[in-house]
Amino acid sequence: MIFDQIGRIRAARPLVFCITNYVTVNDCANILLAIGASPIMADDEQEVEELVSICQGLVLNIGTLNQRTLRSMVLAGKKANQHGIPVIFDPVGNGASRLRTEATRTLLKEVRCAVIRGNVSEIRMAHAGTGSAKGVDAAAADATSVANLVRMARAFAAETGAVIAITGPQDVISSADTSYVISNGHEEMERITGSGCMLTALIGAFAGAGAGDPLGVAAAVGAMGIAGEIAMAGSQGTGSFRTLLMDAISTMDDPFLKERIKIEEFA
Amino acid sequence: MIFDQIGRIRAARPLVFCITNYVTVNDCANILLAIGASPIMADDEQEVEELVSICQGLVLNIGTLNQRTLRSMVLAGKKANQHGIPVIFDPVGNGASRLRTEATRTLLKEVRCAVIRGNVSEIRMAHAGTGSAKGVDAAAADATSVANLVRMARAFAAETGAVIAITGPQDVISSADTSYVISNGHEEMERITGSGCMLTALIGAFAGAGAGDPLGVAAAVGAMGIAGEIAMAGSQGTGSFRTLLMDAISTMDDPFLKERIKIEEFA
Amino acid sequence: MIFDQIGRIRAARPLVFCITNYVTVNDCANILLAIGASPIMADDEQEVEELVSICQGLVLNIGTLNQRTLRSMVLAGKKANQHGIPVIFDPVGNGASRLRTEATRTLLKEVRCAVIRGNVSEIRMAHAGTGSAKGVDAAAADATSVANLVRMARAFAAETGAVIAITGPQDVISSADTSYVISNGHEEMERITGSGCMLTALIGAFAGAGAGDPLGVAAAVGAMGIAGEIAMAGSQGTGSFRTLLMDAISTMDDPFLKERIKIEEFA
Repeated sequence: MIFDQIGRIRAARPLVFCITNYVTVNDCANILLAIGASPIMADDEQEVEELVSICQGLVLNIGTLNQRTLRSMVLAGKKANQHGIPVIFDPVGNGASRLRTEATRTLLKEVRCAVIRGNVSEIRMAHAGTGSAKGVDAAAADATSVANLVRMARAFAAETGAVIAITGPQDVISSADTSYVISNGHEEMERITGSGCMLTALIGAFAGAGAGDPLGVAAAVGAMGIAGEIAMAGSQGTGSFRTLLMDAISTMDDPFLKERIKIEEFA
Repeated sequence: MIFDQIGRIRAARPLVFCITNYVTVNDCANILLAIGASPIMADDEQEVEELVSICQGLVLNIGTLNQRTLRSMVLAGKKANQHGIPVIFDPVGNGASRLRTEATRTLLKEVRCAVIRGNVSEIRMAHAGTGSAKGVDAAAADATSVANLVRMARAFAAETGAVIAITGPQDVISSADTSYVISNGHEEMERITGSGCMLTALIGAFAGAGAGDPLGVAAAVGAMGIAGEIAMAGSQGTGSFRTLLMDAISTMDDPFLKERIKIEEFA
Repeated sequence: MIFDQIGRIRAARPLVFCITNYVTVNDCANILLAIGASPIMADDEQEVEELVSICQGLVLNIGTLNQRTLRSMVLAGKKANQHGIPVIFDPVGNGASRLRTEATRTLLKEVRCAVIRGNVSEIRMAHAGTGSAKGVDAAAADATSVANLVRMARAFAAETGAVIAITGPQDVISSADTSYVISNGHEEMERITGSGCMLTALIGAFAGAGAGDPLGVAAAVGAMGIAGEIAMAGSQGTGSFRTLLMDAISTMDDPFLKERIKIEEFA
């Protein structure tokens, strides 16, 4: 497996446009800068299509969705499809409310996604229309084996044409026929807000630099997990954990990623 | 006095739904996770009632209020009252503008609050309709004795049925008949944004785990104050202070809280 | 040159009202507190004029502009002009979309600004109506000599009556006839989000304490650059860099600023 994605991001410096929630938007901008991309965040209908036309990746995140921003997401997503710009979609809290479930359905219907990332509850809900979401975290009832996750991811990938990333204790990244399992990370990542949103933004940087294939997405997921491991080693609590996580992404390079990533292709 | 509240939060992992301002929303989500609760932030009218029905605590904070989010707060608050879910209200900047004064009045009229937290200017304005607020900080002209704070808190508690927390150099927490004074904390807490908002969110975690009584609210206030003291000991400025404050909350437990809290019942 | 501005801020504690973007709003509030000012952030049309009337400085930042907040900015700016309160304007991403270009034009037409701060692409677009902006970062094509930057700043200052701050590898601060060049700072500042927005907020504190003249604005720019140098010395990556930058502002005083600032008057 070839890991040259971070170098490609730092060379290309892709502009990643995010229509995202106001809870973790600062973290998302900072992680894009840390990996070597350039962020722009906006949400007004009057400018989103124009901003899409100058960007290399579009991230749609429904974490604090409202009716105005949903319209902007659809407009931006359609324009990105026209221009061949990869769309990375994070259905935060899908299943927790009708608004989120319907927004997810609308976006999947109107916009062709290059990558969809969520926890098992969010992805199950998007794929099968059922799930046990309690808020924005994965429901215990939705936990399942890696083999089942791969099956779900492949079916959903076949249905949408997107690379699917289901993140959790182990992460599954899959197209319709190629699947990877990543075993990096630390559970402390669940104790800060935004680890999911930041990962989605990070995938936007990888896809924006032409690394939106299953291996590229797996590299992004691995980078985030490794950063969590490094942060845990030096952390005194969740505040310093968060700072060290950003430090680790900003100093990571491809050889280090290759050395530390725990990746397996799932046959 | 029994301090088992943090353990109860970590066991129950209450989902705390916040309709809050975009300045400190990330800090509020992180402190909820740090204490062991699960946060969800949202503000669209179409989903707030549904989200209330899956949460254990509702935090309403008017820090960057607009007309759309005020409607959502009223809807969510009424639904929480129907479901018996505790509502924690933070009237940020009450008195600084008519919009905030009227929003506070509307929320107090339409929603039964379990806890109301503010600085002396905000609470005086909410209770007596007078105050000297300059922006979002307490006005020097409103400073008064602990005995006067207790009197104000008790009267306001009797009027609203809520536990009242007036925070400042010393903190007063009171129902109509039971009052505590907390003497923890450090003035450096005034040099970062969000110490008030984070405390309100923290109270949401305590109330969401069934510890919304005056002693539970006092424990939350004490935990925040102790975290401020610990952060101050290691800080090199306000940036590291903020990181260490989060570290301290994320590593705090009940025995440590019991050992460090400076609490007195006010007879 | 006299550097007493930080002391004046800490004595006066100006209330700085920011209508700003939701990406870096928390950083802006924290840096205002770090330097000794008091922040208030709000954006609803119903309260912005009232809040202007109690503040000493108004910061307008179009980073995540929408049509609602643009109306609020115009209302607040006009009111500030009536009350003689300095308006500091940051045309984030000016040139990247028609919405931003037109909003900048509207604000410059409707509101008399005391200070305008941007990168070379944003300022060139505001002044000459041309530029090569790619998102919110300065375009390489717009890089030019200090002499050219001074010429542009002076012409734009003469046109608007504002002090102009063009920030980049070297920073130019200029009225129509007095110009300073600052050579502090570190390129790492481009690897975190908000260094521009934070600087604009900081200038709001200086102007709010009566130091909105070219030397005062240069002092603010110098303070930020020095903080970047100090942060770089201790940083392990962009996460700790950001924390240390805030630490450095919160502990900076006038003698230290005077000692470290690299300032030249441009004749």
